[in-house]
Amino acid sequence: MKKLINDPADVVREALQGMEAAHSDLIKVTYDPYTIVRKDAPVQGKVALVSGGGSGHEPMHGGFVGMGMLDAACPGEVFTSPTPDQMEAATKAVDGGAGVIHIVKNYTGDVMNFEMAADLCRAEGTEVESVLVDDDVAVQDSLYTAGRRGVGATVLLEKIAGAAAEEKRPLKEVADICREVNANARTMGMALTSCTVPAAGKPTFELGDDEMEIGIGIHGEPGRERMKLKPAHDIVEQMATAVAEDLPFSSGDNVLAFVNGMGGTPLIELYLVFNELNAFLKGKGVTITRILVGSYITSLEMAGCSITLLKLNDELTKLWDAPVKTPGLRWGV
Amino acid sequence: MKKLINDPADVVREALQGMEAAHSDLIKVTYDPYTIVRKDAPVQGKVALVSGGGSGHEPMHGGFVGMGMLDAACPGEVFTSPTPDQMEAATKAVDGGAGVIHIVKNYTGDVMNFEMAADLCRAEGTEVESVLVDDDVAVQDSLYTAGRRGVGATVLLEKIAGAAAEEKRPLKEVADICREVNANARTMGMALTSCTVPAAGKPTFELGDDEMEIGIGIHGEPGRERMKLKPAHDIVEQMATAVAEDLPFSSGDNVLAFVNGMGGTPLIELYLVFNELNAFLKGKGVTITRILVGSYITSLEMAGCSITLLKLNDELTKLWDAPVKTPGLRWGV
Repeated sequence: MKKLINDPADVVREALQGMEAAHSDLIKVTYDPYTIVRKDAPVQGKVALVSGGGSGHEPMHGGFVGMGMLDAACPGEVFTSPTPDQMEAATKAVDGGAGVIHIVKNYTGDVMNFEMAADLCRAEGTEVESVLVDDDVAVQDSLYTAGRRGVGATVLLEKIAGAAAEEKRPLKEVADICREVNANARTMGMALTSCTVPAAGKPTFELGDDEMEIGIGIHGEPGRERMKLKPAHDIVEQMATAVAEDLPFSSGDNVLAFVNGMGGTPLIELYLVFNELNAFLKGKGVTITRILVGSYITSLEMAGCSITLLKLNDELTKLWDAPVKTPGLRWGV
Repeated sequence: MKKLINDPADVVREALQGMEAAHSDLIKVTYDPYTIVRKDAPVQGKVALVSGGGSGHEPMHGGFVGMGMLDAACPGEVFTSPTPDQMEAATKAVDGGAGVIHIVKNYTGDVMNFEMAADLCRAEGTEVESVLVDDDVAVQDSLYTAGRRGVGATVLLEKIAGAAAEEKRPLKEVADICREVNANARTMGMALTSCTVPAAGKPTFELGDDEMEIGIGIHGEPGRERMKLKPAHDIVEQMATAVAEDLPFSSGDNVLAFVNGMGGTPLIELYLVFNELNAFLKGKGVTITRILVGSYITSLEMAGCSITLLKLNDELTKLWDAPVKTPGLRWGV
């Protein structure tokens, strides 16, 4: 296992300490339990957005805490759901009196623990709405999931809902925007290599020197198919076809195209993938009007990428363009 | 070789096409020869900044073209110097009548070709100043270098000089700021793995499963020492000591601390490295007042990191904070 770490047991805590030291102008970090909270929280009268999940997907979610995006994130251990007490602490820390939305990626542990946390918070008088992200078209059920997995759309949803919350829109309306984004977004991923969970010390799965896995999950969960490595053109065509046909995305649609790196894939390859995706969508009459290219929802050092498409309308576009100031996404301020 | 590419011969062109499609609001791309030029170039009355070098280091340099940073970049083939005709074309495209600065990383090919290009441009009446970046403390000479290599400080220099140029400061003053940044910045890098140049098809060097290379160059050039893998604490201490003692950085200094990923290292590890660097500098009485954590000057899919420290004063800090809008760095707009 080759990683820039100390004791594998300390990875999450030490990375959080690094985040805290690097971004003390934007975030506050607590360690018992782990939470990352917007510096100026709670923002009175604003709906608060809380998300969370296992660590190892950085910058998601902690890197998306700040003005215009999340109010708090709960990082679990690597690829391990955070606990209800983390979620409860985060919810309390950001409750500004207008209600709190829990943004939950569809993994069994996350769903169960966020449900418990929501019940605890409601019992104490906080209004909580939960929204589920399940955008991965690769497989119906999976190793850690009943139903589809929540992946790349989470990043887009957190940005767009964050902008709506910043406008002080009411709880139900912001939750509906979350559901609208999830309903109009689809994703598929692939891996060239496995990744290694620090505490495990060995790769999560084995992949031959000439093999790739199409439809992989962000924890290395099996996908649709293991196959011989192909040119980027063929890989993108296969993934983008699955994504585009699922909603479906049709001629005349405007979309946000998000090419995401899994952690070990450099930007030069992501731009090459974007080039293929752009050509593919042109061929379908779909217009890319907004883009995101980079490593925003990762799987430790896994090499690979995912493609997310989100059908845009004027309102979603306006919310995407709104100012955001977080460690991981920043514009307009 | 596991990469998201098509024909290895087409990697640079296809990645440029992807960049152009993704960032058509910020940049223009030409293909014969390759240049990436700021969309609104030439900006009349503004000193123009041109840089360039081999591809494979993305987002550097093309990702730093835009308001508040570079006016143009010349991408060579992977790890190969761009040619004088590229540099000449870029220089002409951005010349707004106030002179052009060539920002040259200290590699023999880059230096030679930028000199030829500067001569060509001067012969045609464009005022050109060249500034050299040579911040790598690891080795005195190297495989492609007489003197120290230019590495991480390039990113900081391009941002800071870009802000000065945006204020319409005169040519000599902006060039002096470039030289001030280079004089006050030091870097050292390390690798956990090699990288593979697409056209070569095999790793640039071999590194054992339990080995790392300290002082590596951004093309996989040999560093100071190959050794057994150590904890992040020890790696950072060794690199940061070399960096801090070289200027030297002393108690009471304010610095910009830049932890850079080499392309295959995920953000969770970079934050862990930042945590170690923060503790190290605290112990020396050096205060981190500005930070950059992420993969900004990469070596394809190499796993590893570099540490750059830049001694700050009020003016450099103000220029660092100024608005920037490029594909790779953006804030304030």
